[in-house]
Amino acid sequence: MSEQDQGRDERHRQRMQRKKAVVDEKIATAQQERGVLLVNTGNGKGKSSSGFGMAARALGHGMRVGIVQFIKGAKSTGEENFFRRFPDEVRYHVMGAGFTWETQDRQDDIVKAEAAWAVAVELMRDPEVSLVLLDELNIALKYGYLQLDQVIADIQARPAHQHVVVTGRGAPPALVEAADTVTDMGVVKHAFKAGIKAQKGVEF
Amino acid sequence: MSEQDQGRDERHRQRMQRKKAVVDEKIATAQQERGVLLVNTGNGKGKSSSGFGMAARALGHGMRVGIVQFIKGAKSTGEENFFRRFPDEVRYHVMGAGFTWETQDRQDDIVKAEAAWAVAVELMRDPEVSLVLLDELNIALKYGYLQLDQVIADIQARPAHQHVVVTGRGAPPALVEAADTVTDMGVVKHAFKAGIKAQKGVEF
Repeated sequence: MSEQDQGRDERHRQRMQRKKAVVDEKIATAQQERGVLLVNTGNGKGKSSSGFGMAARALGHGMRVGIVQFIKGAKSTGEENFFRRFPDEVRYHVMGAGFTWETQDRQDDIVKAEAAWAVAVELMRDPEVSLVLLDELNIALKYGYLQLDQVIADIQARPAHQHVVVTGRGAPPALVEAADTVTDMGVVKHAFKAGIKAQKGVEF
Repeated sequence: MSEQDQGRDERHRQRMQRKKAVVDEKIATAQQERGVLLVNTGNGKGKSSSGFGMAARALGHGMRVGIVQFIKGAKSTGEENFFRRFPDEVRYHVMGAGFTWETQDRQDDIVKAEAAWAVAVELMRDPEVSLVLLDELNIALKYGYLQLDQVIADIQARPAHQHVVVTGRGAPPALVEAADTVTDMGVVKHAFKAGIKAQKGVEF
């Protein structure tokens, strides 16, 4: 190995050593363990899929998972097909009305949103469930199908160790305030705008 | 129902009808189907988990999936435990060196990154594989463990219908340029900064 390479490797080692000290210190100061509320919002891709990825992680640790899909539901999705394979580990509920611009029926949407919320509350009262995914809940909140104060109160009344993931554009400020981790998924670019349709395995 | 409620429902119906026209038109103009390159970057939570969620979706449609984890690998993760349950459907490879600030050994990291890339290339040459997740590849690129030009050329040489998802902070501009869909996961807030440790089912 050349002297130049050796110097580069040594600088790398020293830089990583310093980085490790910083990372180790951060880890040492973050020792609290409890259920967290996560919100995935923004206009970019990844909000729901990230929730489903966390569901997969939780299942890998032997945890029980609850999934409620708000708004979406008119067409068969890969996530539903997949997670329904594990009925002993995953409780899966789909509101079953399609997007709200497909139904165009506010009263019917409200009835279905309230029924879906009742399922969510049941999951959030079950201490055996370690992670609850409330997919596209923000859309139901945006249209006023559910009462925000009640939704937040129900989430906060869950078992102390239970994680809740809420997804959807336009998360209301009070929900962001109540959350522990909030990610804004920003669009840098999207294939859809370049004329590529929503595809299996990617968008649904 | 009050007249006020009826008026609100009718305005909702009209708004949703207009929205449906806009959505339908967008869908009509996006008719191309082909494999896309997705990049999940930024400092917020959700980059890897979104990739794992897409893997779950693809499996739900009966597709075959390949997963290569760069950089991460020193500790057992929920995603690995979970997706290894499906050896006929998922090919799972972990680089197996932990974070680079744990190893502090640049030459050893490079050897392992190159071996992991060889697995990635094999997956990207297999037309039976519909989705390839290259988790934390951006970190390997950031440290110069792999040659960016070669990485992009290998990704572009994949079968036309195959989707590739690349995750990790600091995606290089040339990769963003080559990609179809790019999401920047921005931190609004993160539990870790409030003293909550990385937890099973959420972060790993």
